[in-house]
Amino acid sequence: MISLLDIRARIADGTLSATGAIRAARERIAGRDPSIRAVLRIAPEAAVPESGPLAGIAVGIKDIIDTSDMATEFGSGIYAGWRPRADAAIVSRLRALGAVPLAKTATTAFAGLDPAATVNPRDPGHTPGGSSSGSAAAVAAGMLPLALGTQTGGSVIRPAAFCGVAAIKPSFRLLPTVGVKTFSWALDTVGLFGASVADIAHALALVAERPAIEASAPERPSLALCVQDFAGSPDADALAALDRAARAAERAGASVRDLVLPEPFARAWAAHPTVQDFEARQALAWEYAEHRNALPPVLRGQLDRAQDLTAPDYDAARREAHRARRLLKDLFSDIDAILTVSSVGRAPRGLGSTGDARFNRLWTLMGVPCVNVPVPGDGLPLGVQVIARFGDDGRALAVARMIEGALRRA
Amino acid sequence: MISLLDIRARIADGTLSATGAIRAARERIAGRDPSIRAVLRIAPEAAVPESGPLAGIAVGIKDIIDTSDMATEFGSGIYAGWRPRADAAIVSRLRALGAVPLAKTATTAFAGLDPAATVNPRDPGHTPGGSSSGSAAAVAAGMLPLALGTQTGGSVIRPAAFCGVAAIKPSFRLLPTVGVKTFSWALDTVGLFGASVADIAHALALVAERPAIEASAPERPSLALCVQDFAGSPDADALAALDRAARAAERAGASVRDLVLPEPFARAWAAHPTVQDFEARQALAWEYAEHRNALPPVLRGQLDRAQDLTAPDYDAARREAHRARRLLKDLFSDIDAILTVSSVGRAPRGLGSTGDARFNRLWTLMGVPCVNVPVPGDGLPLGVQVIARFGDDGRALAVARMIEGALRRA
Repeated sequence: MISLLDIRARIADGTLSATGAIRAARERIAGRDPSIRAVLRIAPEAAVPESGPLAGIAVGIKDIIDTSDMATEFGSGIYAGWRPRADAAIVSRLRALGAVPLAKTATTAFAGLDPAATVNPRDPGHTPGGSSSGSAAAVAAGMLPLALGTQTGGSVIRPAAFCGVAAIKPSFRLLPTVGVKTFSWALDTVGLFGASVADIAHALALVAERPAIEASAPERPSLALCVQDFAGSPDADALAALDRAARAAERAGASVRDLVLPEPFARAWAAHPTVQDFEARQALAWEYAEHRNALPPVLRGQLDRAQDLTAPDYDAARREAHRARRLLKDLFSDIDAILTVSSVGRAPRGLGSTGDARFNRLWTLMGVPCVNVPVPGDGLPLGVQVIARFGDDGRALAVARMIEGALRRA
Repeated sequence: MISLLDIRARIADGTLSATGAIRAARERIAGRDPSIRAVLRIAPEAAVPESGPLAGIAVGIKDIIDTSDMATEFGSGIYAGWRPRADAAIVSRLRALGAVPLAKTATTAFAGLDPAATVNPRDPGHTPGGSSSGSAAAVAAGMLPLALGTQTGGSVIRPAAFCGVAAIKPSFRLLPTVGVKTFSWALDTVGLFGASVADIAHALALVAERPAIEASAPERPSLALCVQDFAGSPDADALAALDRAARAAERAGASVRDLVLPEPFARAWAAHPTVQDFEARQALAWEYAEHRNALPPVLRGQLDRAQDLTAPDYDAARREAHRARRLLKDLFSDIDAILTVSSVGRAPRGLGSTGDARFNRLWTLMGVPCVNVPVPGDGLPLGVQVIARFGDDGRALAVARMIEGALRRA
């Protein structure tokens, strides 16, 4: 993988130019992508900014995020060749920092569950996860040092875990969603993929204009190990990876205790699909009314069923979420972070499914920051999620960095 | 003015067809709009749905709301001729109900403070208010029975008051903003204009899929009369109108007491522009970076100043809002609605300004439903705002309907 901080260090010491760094990214995409299919389109050749804190950083932009210089198709033929007029707010922000939004990356249609064509760079016979399939795969394959994704259920953390890259789903609305195709406005969250936790912490601190995000470093953090029984059982090797991460955290000075989430969290977890699908039915109403037959089968079925959801169903689901959010705030009063699995297990075989978001969706509904830390081992990657209280993305990243370092030393 | 409920009644009793109702709206626009300039463009002739609970209702769509069959220019030459691919979610919803999104209505540029060309139908020498200038004016001039606006500061309630029409800024996110140009995602709220409170209650109940919104009717409601001292003094005739509305409410059976909002509300009121402008800087980052000189002067200056806002400023402002929201919830525990002025006074003379949102912005930041009730009298219109707790749009409308009726009987 290509590290953002390494590129920036080489630019700072004069051994690399921003132009050279972007050229190298173009070459890596040309070499690697034909077998991965993570990249849909590449920005036209243009002058590369040589100044700015992210100069020289080529960024992958999930194709539900508007770009003014490249088509944006939302993973659907309904929008074939569609050219937005403006950049999304997050794309403008990247440009203002000197970064180059270089490539549009593959997304499942409208960031739903129907797979994209991308394969897992660790093993092309397996899914890279979704819906931010191309962004996770492009970073994992070493094509790009940074990529944007979005998460409504588990669309950032799951592909990061399956591809073995660091990623953050930040606090809700820390990054702007203006110019991002909506699936569910109460849930959609822009996230970042990178080669290491330090890389994404640096990028997030800059993009979110909050230097403290990178500076946070709790000493001897208090962690809670949490298994989310209500969501079913993870695979044995996912639980083993979680245990390895917890032991590594302890060796690095953290205290770790078990946390069983009380009943309201189970109800909030069960309420997530209602919030999501009632909003998706509205957000995708035009596509459903005018182009239902052009929607892919899983999304079409999901929207078919969503027609029967009622406003009272939705209001009740929102109340469950609200209750659990208040309770979670209390839970975080004496812990720095929650540690749980990032996915059910390793990336499933085949490209017929992007996997399951069951261990992600509660946290998306809670709006809290979640970081995927890859856990080194044999075979396809596994990851653990580090979760902090709302608004404390720096703490989640600091704990994640600590665990990442301890796992590497193990 | 043209009443939505009247049109629906005539369609129900067979004296009017939906096609006839839409044709009549086209004719009224052709006759009235040349002197008002509320309507920017009209939908191409097409078959009119004859069924659906809003069949025959021609709707004005503020031109920051995407329509697939008409250009959407956000009140700015930067987007001259821009054709979105999809309808906004709220436009799709109207079509699903049988309504016809017939006209794009004039908006200030990006729903900011630089005036549109629309004049006040009550007196063309005065502003209609903004930013939803065309929607308010088109309803006031009897061209359309229903129109969509948006409010970030006071962009629904102010023009409704200036033009003398009923309007609601519903609870935050009761109506979807997907496909609506963002100014501030924490504030932007889609609202409705109509000829009477009963008209907009009927429309909102249908559009929001919540029949209870129309059915609510508190007996002998408890009202709090509130003057918002921290926002300065309203004009004497605005205060007189507020008093008239309060006395009318009492005659209709309401109890009315005075409410002085405690200090945290003053701080929240003062925090509104920081929330708004920090988000606007991101939401309009592409326009500012690529087309700064094409932005109108007030908005350009606002965005210039917004470049200096910091994330800690914004985070502190959001905390003030959060504190006030919790306090407001407590305040509403023993009152049904707050009654306050809708604007500083009558529509100012001239078209150089759209007026002042100082008595609206706290409530937008609180996310609570606000209804404008026109107060009959001589000269240009005045209005009062009826405000209920978050999520209880039905109660705000029921109290507003009661006051509207009592004022008419006076």
